[in-house]
Amino acid sequence: MMHFTKFEDKATAEKLIQKALDYKRDPWIDQAKGQRKRIGCIFLNPSLRTRASTQIAAQQLGMEAIVMNMDKEGWALEMREGVTMNKGTVEHIRDAAGVLGSYFDILAIRAFPSLTNKQEDLEDFVFNQFIKYSGIPVISLESAIRHPLQSLADMVTIHENRGIDKKPKVVLTWAPHIKAIPHAVANSFAEWAIGCGHDLTITHPYGYELDENFTKGANIVLDQKEALAGADFVYVKNWSGFNDYGKILNTDSSWMLTEKHLKHAKNAKIMHCLPVRRNLELSDEMLDGPRSLVMQQAHNRIFAAQSVISHILDQK
Amino acid sequence: MMHFTKFEDKATAEKLIQKALDYKRDPWIDQAKGQRKRIGCIFLNPSLRTRASTQIAAQQLGMEAIVMNMDKEGWALEMREGVTMNKGTVEHIRDAAGVLGSYFDILAIRAFPSLTNKQEDLEDFVFNQFIKYSGIPVISLESAIRHPLQSLADMVTIHENRGIDKKPKVVLTWAPHIKAIPHAVANSFAEWAIGCGHDLTITHPYGYELDENFTKGANIVLDQKEALAGADFVYVKNWSGFNDYGKILNTDSSWMLTEKHLKHAKNAKIMHCLPVRRNLELSDEMLDGPRSLVMQQAHNRIFAAQSVISHILDQK
Amino acid sequence: MMHFTKFEDKATAEKLIQKALDYKRDPWIDQAKGQRKRIGCIFLNPSLRTRASTQIAAQQLGMEAIVMNMDKEGWALEMREGVTMNKGTVEHIRDAAGVLGSYFDILAIRAFPSLTNKQEDLEDFVFNQFIKYSGIPVISLESAIRHPLQSLADMVTIHENRGIDKKPKVVLTWAPHIKAIPHAVANSFAEWAIGCGHDLTITHPYGYELDENFTKGANIVLDQKEALAGADFVYVKNWSGFNDYGKILNTDSSWMLTEKHLKHAKNAKIMHCLPVRRNLELSDEMLDGPRSLVMQQAHNRIFAAQSVISHILDQK
Repeated sequence: MMHFTKFEDKATAEKLIQKALDYKRDPWIDQAKGQRKRIGCIFLNPSLRTRASTQIAAQQLGMEAIVMNMDKEGWALEMREGVTMNKGTVEHIRDAAGVLGSYFDILAIRAFPSLTNKQEDLEDFVFNQFIKYSGIPVISLESAIRHPLQSLADMVTIHENRGIDKKPKVVLTWAPHIKAIPHAVANSFAEWAIGCGHDLTITHPYGYELDENFTKGANIVLDQKEALAGADFVYVKNWSGFNDYGKILNTDSSWMLTEKHLKHAKNAKIMHCLPVRRNLELSDEMLDGPRSLVMQQAHNRIFAAQSVISHILDQK
Repeated sequence: MMHFTKFEDKATAEKLIQKALDYKRDPWIDQAKGQRKRIGCIFLNPSLRTRASTQIAAQQLGMEAIVMNMDKEGWALEMREGVTMNKGTVEHIRDAAGVLGSYFDILAIRAFPSLTNKQEDLEDFVFNQFIKYSGIPVISLESAIRHPLQSLADMVTIHENRGIDKKPKVVLTWAPHIKAIPHAVANSFAEWAIGCGHDLTITHPYGYELDENFTKGANIVLDQKEALAGADFVYVKNWSGFNDYGKILNTDSSWMLTEKHLKHAKNAKIMHCLPVRRNLELSDEMLDGPRSLVMQQAHNRIFAAQSVISHILDQK
Repeated sequence: MMHFTKFEDKATAEKLIQKALDYKRDPWIDQAKGQRKRIGCIFLNPSLRTRASTQIAAQQLGMEAIVMNMDKEGWALEMREGVTMNKGTVEHIRDAAGVLGSYFDILAIRAFPSLTNKQEDLEDFVFNQFIKYSGIPVISLESAIRHPLQSLADMVTIHENRGIDKKPKVVLTWAPHIKAIPHAVANSFAEWAIGCGHDLTITHPYGYELDENFTKGANIVLDQKEALAGADFVYVKNWSGFNDYGKILNTDSSWMLTEKHLKHAKNAKIMHCLPVRRNLELSDEMLDGPRSLVMQQAHNRIFAAQSVISHILDQK
C-alpha cells in the first residue's frame, strides 16, 4: 500500500484495525517512528474531526503535520490538463502537487465531489490529480467517492461492539436531508463492511440506489422496517441521487430513525459519521441514547489515522 | 478549578499571578509538564494576541496546541437544544464539543456575544454549551461577558508596576468608539480588580452603566475628571450600552484620554487590552508615551495563559 | 544582517548559498540551533510554497513556527501614522507589530504591493512598518518590491546547474499575463543575479522597463530573440508596468516561451518562481520538459529559508 484511498483486502483491513486498537490502548508506543517526517494535510473543503484527528495521529507518531486550506490560504488550483490558464485559476495542480510532493513524506487530501459533473466525480478526478503529480504516498481525507479513514474507524467501532460468536447484521439506512450530500461515506462504508465480511443490508427510498461498484454483495431492501429487523448495527447516512446524479429525490421524514423504528432491533447500535443534522437525519433520542456509538466512532478517527500513517511509514 | 472562566477567589488569583511571574522569569521551567498533552484552541471570532499567546504558552509547557477557526475551517454550529436542523447550521455544539472533548486534554474557546440577544449573552450561552458538552477543562479566550486571561495579565501588570506600601487607585474609564463593543473586558477587569482588593473607580457617560454583578464594590463616578484625580492606573476601554443593550449612546470625543486629562494624576499609568483604535479610544500621545503599559500587558498574556494551563494540568 | 529583506553583498550571498546547499545535503545538522526559539509567519496575502517551506525550514532547525493569516484570523491593520481610526481598520500596525515583536524571536512577513499607490509601494511601506515597530529581526516572505527568499533559492538553483568554467548567461524575460502582477520577483532576481556576478540580460516589450534601481548593470534588450541567443538560464516572469504603474500594456502571446524560442539556446534551462499560469506565461512543453528547473527551485525554497533563519540566529 503506497496510497490509502480505499478498501484493499481483508487481510490489510484486519491489520489496520488491529494496529488502531493497539494505538488506542497506548497512543505513544510509536512516538519515534515519525521523527523527522512530515505530513502535509491539504483541505479543499471544511473539516473538524478529520483535521484534528489527523494532526493528533501524526503527533502521536512524533511526526510534524502542516495543515493548509487551499483556495483560502493558497492559490486557486487548475485541475484540467493542457488548458490555457487565462481565467480564475492561479496555479496548476501539476505544479502545486509536485512541489508538495517534494516538501512532505506523505500528503493527506480532502477533495469533495462537484455533484454536478458525474464523470469527473466517478473518476475521483481532483483527488487522483494529487496522486498523479505528487509522487509520494497520499491518504484520502475524503475524496469525491470514498471516505476510507471514516470507514476504518467505523470497522474499529464495530469490532469493539460486536459479539464474538455471531456475525453481526449491519444495516446502512438512508436518512432525510435538505442538501445534496456526497456518496463518499455511504460508498466507503458499504465497501469496507462487505470487504470485512459483515452481513450488510442497505435500505433507502426508491431512486436512491448507490453505485453498484460499492454495493455488490449487499442485501438491498427498499422497505426500511424489514431491513432494520434484527439489526446489530445501524449506520445512518443521507446521500443524494446517484442515477439521478446529485439530486434530492425525497425528503420523507418518516425515514428518520427513532426508537420506534428499532422495535424489532432491540440490541441495535446506532452509527453516524458526523456532522449530523439533528432531528432531520437522526433524532436527539437516538443520538444521545444508549444505542449511540457516534462519539466512539469519532474518537476512533484518531487511531484509524494513526494506524494508516504508521502503516505507510512502514512501507517506505 | 476545573475550568478557567472567571475570577474565583483572591487566593487563587494571587497564586495564578505568582505563577505567571515565575514563568516570565523562566518560561521553560515546566517544559516537561505538558508532554503528551494537547490543547485545542477554538476561535469563533478573530484573534491576534490571544491566538499567539495561547499557542506560545502551551509550547513553553511542552504541550501541543491545535488551533481551529470554526465556521471557516470547520462547520457552522447549531447552539440551541432540540431544534430540527433544517437550516444553515451543519453540526450541533453537542456533537462538536463532545468530539473535541475526546480529542484534547483542555479546550480553549473564544465566543463573542451577539450584542442583540441580551438574555443569551448574559447566560454566556455559546461558551457554556462548550463547557456542558465537552466534558473536559475549558479555558475562556473571551466569552460573551468575560475575558479572564486578559484580566489576569492586567493584574500581573499592575502587580509589576504598583508601589509596595500604598493600595493603588485604579480607574476604569469608558472611551469613545464607532462600533458596538462587548462588555467582556470591562466586566472582567472590574471583577478581578475588585476581587484582588484594588481600590476601583469606574467612570463613564450617563447611560453606560455596566452590569452590577461585575461592578459591586467599585466607586462609580460619572465625572471623568473627578474619577481620574489621583489615579495610579487608568484602564481605558469602550463598551456599548448594557441597559440599552448593545447600543451606542454617546460618541463624545472629549472622553478620549489625553495628557490634559491626567493633570491631577501625575503618576498614572495607562492600560488598554488592545486592539485599540488610536486617536478615537486613546491618543497616540498616551499610547506611545512613558505612561503606557499596553505592550507590557500584551506581553504578560503569554505568562497568564501559561499560568492557567499549568494550574489546570496540576488539578487533573 | 539583522533583517533579511534584500541582496546585501556578494560575500553574504555566497555564504547563504553555501549554507543552503549544506542543509540540502543534511537538513537536520542544526536541529538544536532553534530550540526554544519561535518564528512568527504573518501572511497579508496567500501563499503555498512560502508558507510550507518556511515552516519546514524552522522545523528542521528545531524551531517553532506559528503562522497567522492577518485580516482573516487577526484584525484589519491600520498602517498610516497619526490617523484617527474611525473607519474599517481595527488595530494599528504599531501595536500589532510591537506585540508580535515581544512574542517571537524572528518575524517573517508577506505584504504584497497595492499596485495603485506607487510611492507607498516603492518605499515598501507596509513591510517597513513591521520592521519599524516589531524591534526584532524580520524576514521578507515577499514585500511590495522584493522577494529575496525566492531569489536566494534561484541563485542556489543556478549554482547547482551551471558549468564550472564559464560565466553563465542569464536572461530574465517578460511573459504575458491577464492580471497586473507585482515587480517583486523580477526586481529581486535582477538584484541578486547582478550582485552574484552573473551576466544578466533582461528582455521585455517596450514600456515594461523595470525600476532602474534593480536593473543597473543588466543588459536590456527589447528584442526577445536576440536576448535569448546563447542563454544558459532563462527566467520567465510577468510583471505589470512600472513607469505606467500597475498597468497591463501588452498581452502579446508571442512572448510566451516555447521550444521554438530557444532554437539558439540549445542548453538553456528554464526557471519560474511559481505559481505559473500554464500556456499563458509559459507552455506545458517548457514546464514539463527537460529544460525545466521549476521544481528544483521550489524545493530549494526550503533550504534558502533554513539558511536565512540559521544565519539570523547566528547574529543574535
